[in-house]
Amino acid sequence: MSELFAIALDIGGTKVEAALVDGHGAVLAGSRHRAPTGRERSAEQLADSVRTVLDGVLALIGPDAAVSPASVLGVGIGAAGPVNLAEARVSPLNMPVWDDYPLSALVADIVHPVVPGIPVTLRLDGLCITLAEHWVGAASGHDNVLGMIVSTGVGGGLILGGRTVPGPTGNAGHVGHLEVGGHEDACPCGGSGCLEAVASGPRTVAWANGQGWVGDTGEQLAAAVAAGDPVALRAVERSGRAIGRAIASAASLVDLDVVAIGGGFSHVSPLLFEHARAAVAERATFGYVTRLQIVPSALSGEGPLIGAAALIHRAEMVG
Amino acid sequence: MSELFAIALDIGGTKVEAALVDGHGAVLAGSRHRAPTGRERSAEQLADSVRTVLDGVLALIGPDAAVSPASVLGVGIGAAGPVNLAEARVSPLNMPVWDDYPLSALVADIVHPVVPGIPVTLRLDGLCITLAEHWVGAASGHDNVLGMIVSTGVGGGLILGGRTVPGPTGNAGHVGHLEVGGHEDACPCGGSGCLEAVASGPRTVAWANGQGWVGDTGEQLAAAVAAGDPVALRAVERSGRAIGRAIASAASLVDLDVVAIGGGFSHVSPLLFEHARAAVAERATFGYVTRLQIVPSALSGEGPLIGAAALIHRAEMVG
Repeated sequence: MSELFAIALDIGGTKVEAALVDGHGAVLAGSRHRAPTGRERSAEQLADSVRTVLDGVLALIGPDAAVSPASVLGVGIGAAGPVNLAEARVSPLNMPVWDDYPLSALVADIVHPVVPGIPVTLRLDGLCITLAEHWVGAASGHDNVLGMIVSTGVGGGLILGGRTVPGPTGNAGHVGHLEVGGHEDACPCGGSGCLEAVASGPRTVAWANGQGWVGDTGEQLAAAVAAGDPVALRAVERSGRAIGRAIASAASLVDLDVVAIGGGFSHVSPLLFEHARAAVAERATFGYVTRLQIVPSALSGEGPLIGAAALIHRAEMVG
Repeated sequence: MSELFAIALDIGGTKVEAALVDGHGAVLAGSRHRAPTGRERSAEQLADSVRTVLDGVLALIGPDAAVSPASVLGVGIGAAGPVNLAEARVSPLNMPVWDDYPLSALVADIVHPVVPGIPVTLRLDGLCITLAEHWVGAASGHDNVLGMIVSTGVGGGLILGGRTVPGPTGNAGHVGHLEVGGHEDACPCGGSGCLEAVASGPRTVAWANGQGWVGDTGEQLAAAVAAGDPVALRAVERSGRAIGRAIASAASLVDLDVVAIGGGFSHVSPLLFEHARAAVAERATFGYVTRLQIVPSALSGEGPLIGAAALIHRAEMVG
């Protein structure tokens, strides 16, 4: 085969996945592997999960295997944060046993015996998602992009001037911790009124519960919105406006072309996007803010892996 | 003379200034010229003010003058925003008769007959101030910088990864329009709870007035703080915390090393800085946020001119 591949690794709070991704952003059929992570696991068990998914991928690589070692360009890792880029370490909030854990070194130790010397590039998962939106998703063709994930938390990443913005520590893109005017909801980060504390899926459900709506999940809330439940509608308006206000703040600071929003809770209702757009439109004095587009993510469930692979395949965008 | 110079032009809501600035960030003695701007002037009168200050500088340049044309590298323009970089136009909020005005073309028409062909580089004034802090001020040696001006408004600029961030339209850095949790103060931009609407000098004075403090100016408020007036102290706490909260939001998004704060109202009291730092320190979960330093500007009143000159002398940082 003449196709070139990246090994993609995506490590999050509940699972780790790995796959081979080609230069067009496609996951090689049969190469995707998954293993559990999470709070209940020890540091060594987490490392074992990483080893398991990478071994699954590496079994496809070899002189006599489907993929030749010479066609594997590198390993891209998208990790839950915070990260410590200078030392290629991670301290995922949902895996506290990994405190400043040398993830890149672990991955290199596993991969290099099969594919010697290839680069291992680590970035925050939100940055990887944003790269994937730029490469094969909703932000294609735009040089100034905020990618957002609205789910159990609110995360994201930035591309400015056609280049990713990792920040000196690697933690740029935490859009969930922009404050939202008028809100003082306590945030686990120590702040108050952070977007994540207002508009994440669980926080939106909790607000609706406080207003008398009975239900537990974002999916139930989505059904209630679709059925016209007034509290559910107000909950989506409140969170959608908060998302839009945080986007307006971000755009005031960095001047954005497009904001691509994905994540499970982004599917609660198209009204979430309408309210976000309406909040941005209120900043009428600043055409450079109101000009931005807010669009749904165009990524599938493979987005995080494609984004991790983009660290290798789109290395020219990775600062 | 072997020294190389930039022509610096700074245009704001009350005045325009021009000067020659050398490669060490020093204004050439006797080269600084000033003329009025403001709302009461016509578009042509504003252009005349620009012409006046530039003619003052150009009188120093010539084959037989103090500065040889060959030693003038270019013109840097720092302008009140918004700007339209793609077309090198400005639409300053405080000079509404200049609506998408071709400022760079005006400047080139004035300068090129004396110094043919030199580049004319336009950027937002907040970006220029930030470049000046990086070049000769409080942010020297740092690659990830937010410069802030807290005065009648709140403006700023960004340096990330050692390069300025103009944004695609040139309007990145409007830190005054980041929202602050818990505040809903109406902002002229159309938003509410924007930092500028909470913590500018006039807004802080207005809040203190609403709490019963009698006084009109930031200077009077500074005196009241120094004298221990409890309302004045609370006003500075409220604005300082708002500044810190906006900084924490900005740092969450872009990962900052240092924030340099200048502008008239930044001198109201050292307590303004203490409260800002305390608000950032509350974000205890995110070491990449709490690690940032908040420092007073180290620029003199020449800062805006030095920053405009940095567009030429530090061109490698200007995207």
